[in-house]
Amino acid sequence: MTAPRYDVIAIGNAIVDVMAPASDELVEELGMTKGGMTLVDADQARDLYAAMGPAKEISGGSAANTLAGLSGMGAQCAFVGQVADDQLGNVFAHDIRAVGIDFDVPAREGEPPTARCLIFVTPDGQRTMNTFLGATQFLPAGALDEEAIGGAEILYLEGYLWDPEEPRKAMRAAIKSAKDAGRKVAFTLSDAFVIERYGDDFRALIEDGMIDIVFANEVELGALTGEDDFDVGLAALDGKVPVLVVTRSEKGAVCVTGGETFKVAAEPVEKVVDTTGAGDLFAAGFLFGHVRGEEPSRCLKRGAIAAAEIISHYGARPETDLARLMDEKLG
Amino acid sequence: MTAPRYDVIAIGNAIVDVMAPASDELVEELGMTKGGMTLVDADQARDLYAAMGPAKEISGGSAANTLAGLSGMGAQCAFVGQVADDQLGNVFAHDIRAVGIDFDVPAREGEPPTARCLIFVTPDGQRTMNTFLGATQFLPAGALDEEAIGGAEILYLEGYLWDPEEPRKAMRAAIKSAKDAGRKVAFTLSDAFVIERYGDDFRALIEDGMIDIVFANEVELGALTGEDDFDVGLAALDGKVPVLVVTRSEKGAVCVTGGETFKVAAEPVEKVVDTTGAGDLFAAGFLFGHVRGEEPSRCLKRGAIAAAEIISHYGARPETDLARLMDEKLG
Repeated sequence: MTAPRYDVIAIGNAIVDVMAPASDELVEELGMTKGGMTLVDADQARDLYAAMGPAKEISGGSAANTLAGLSGMGAQCAFVGQVADDQLGNVFAHDIRAVGIDFDVPAREGEPPTARCLIFVTPDGQRTMNTFLGATQFLPAGALDEEAIGGAEILYLEGYLWDPEEPRKAMRAAIKSAKDAGRKVAFTLSDAFVIERYGDDFRALIEDGMIDIVFANEVELGALTGEDDFDVGLAALDGKVPVLVVTRSEKGAVCVTGGETFKVAAEPVEKVVDTTGAGDLFAAGFLFGHVRGEEPSRCLKRGAIAAAEIISHYGARPETDLARLMDEKLG
Repeated sequence: MTAPRYDVIAIGNAIVDVMAPASDELVEELGMTKGGMTLVDADQARDLYAAMGPAKEISGGSAANTLAGLSGMGAQCAFVGQVADDQLGNVFAHDIRAVGIDFDVPAREGEPPTARCLIFVTPDGQRTMNTFLGATQFLPAGALDEEAIGGAEILYLEGYLWDPEEPRKAMRAAIKSAKDAGRKVAFTLSDAFVIERYGDDFRALIEDGMIDIVFANEVELGALTGEDDFDVGLAALDGKVPVLVVTRSEKGAVCVTGGETFKVAAEPVEKVVDTTGAGDLFAAGFLFGHVRGEEPSRCLKRGAIAAAEIISHYGARPETDLARLMDEKLG
């Protein structure tokens, strides 16, 4: 096993976020579940966009946001995801490369267009997401570079992308490549709806020892384990997942590893502006510490710091020099 | 003359801003004139974009920004400008309609794409702009709705758009329509390079009494009058322009009208984040007061308040409820 070329290689959705402030009334009027993520088709996306206030376009995508955080801390990263050959695809590709992440998947010709996520941000900072998947769901298994995957310390997978068939196949192939090369596989569960549909897949992968690190929030932990009680849910995965990280919003986060439980409080923020990307950046902070062999408590603390940065402004990509921020906060 | 349907109808560039923080070193390395606006072709735009950090896309365009400010204060507005039938064109159209501005010019099929402005924002908040004009320079005279122009209290024209031939013709036709209908014409000089090329046009229009309100900054005033001294420059236009408004950045602004000179100090801001749109929003505030028949001093104060809002955040479109802000600040 040669020295890894990448700290983390990720497979995820290539999405541009379209973000606008919105009132709670508007979110209700449009029949959206506040705080949730809903997949929408082209017609629904058009109608929701028409109902949205003036917006900003900022690159997003869960795993891509995590990589942007990792890269900002100084990690070497590569991204695998599918954009279309259009202006938003160009925006996504520019923004991810501009932070030093390798991204080599060719843009896909023709319809559908690049994915976008219409995000309504209410005054409490909560985000309600409506995702038009477009091109991102057509990531072909052929887009994977086995050598790159084998040469990355961690393969990071976004649960959202388990839903469409082609990327799911690609991810299964990537897991095999990573494990064959003796690398670690990290998986973020993304959303309860993904677990409702594919929980059996995930549980089987975990039972088979294919997943080394799992990121989840409380709801996703409950959906995966079938346990309503948080501590019972944690216990249900004990010994099955080498590293389990569960984020709990303002209650902080927990890591269970090696039979031990570690906790971190949420990092204080002056004002929660927009929670988009909080989980993604928590994962970034944790993984950065993890690939450097740091103690779980320090990894958690990095996660909390990165998450606090992202919720203090609009958009799910860091706006602060995270490397410097970590130095300041951790000493 | 029936009651006007619009307070302001504007003809301007339909541009999406692509904005990123940048170091002073990068601006210098790329050979850009800090604080300036440069027109770039498609190749230059591609190269500059490649050199730019991760960006945000936010609708812009000078006159369009002014209308967004006016609309936010409660004015009825219509915009005339040309986007292409592409994703950025869709973004521009959405954002301007989302604030209640009428925008009916059909998107232009085929190449070139919608205009974009690559804006490098240095740590001092100064913006350096590189504009790829694309579709915006093909606004045809046929896009004008004479009835709408005749039915707007003020026709507002963006000097930037005097440069390309087709829109220049459209603007000349619009001036005639407005004056024939007994309406006022307001003109923002936009940039010294426009005056270098078309100063004779502007001086002739002014001599002919076709321009009722001129917005300029100090440099543009100097370019238009050929006078280096600010007060001599102001005096040179006295009696020729019914209302002259000159913005002076942190030194505030001046209005000369009816032989009298009015001044306003710059509104204090906690931190200048991004000066993009400062002049545009000053014009918005001033025009809002003007169409309501307010005293010049109060119009200037509105301009200063709106400009202070826009420079306190990224992007040239207001993020605050300007109507409420005016109420708070003006009582």
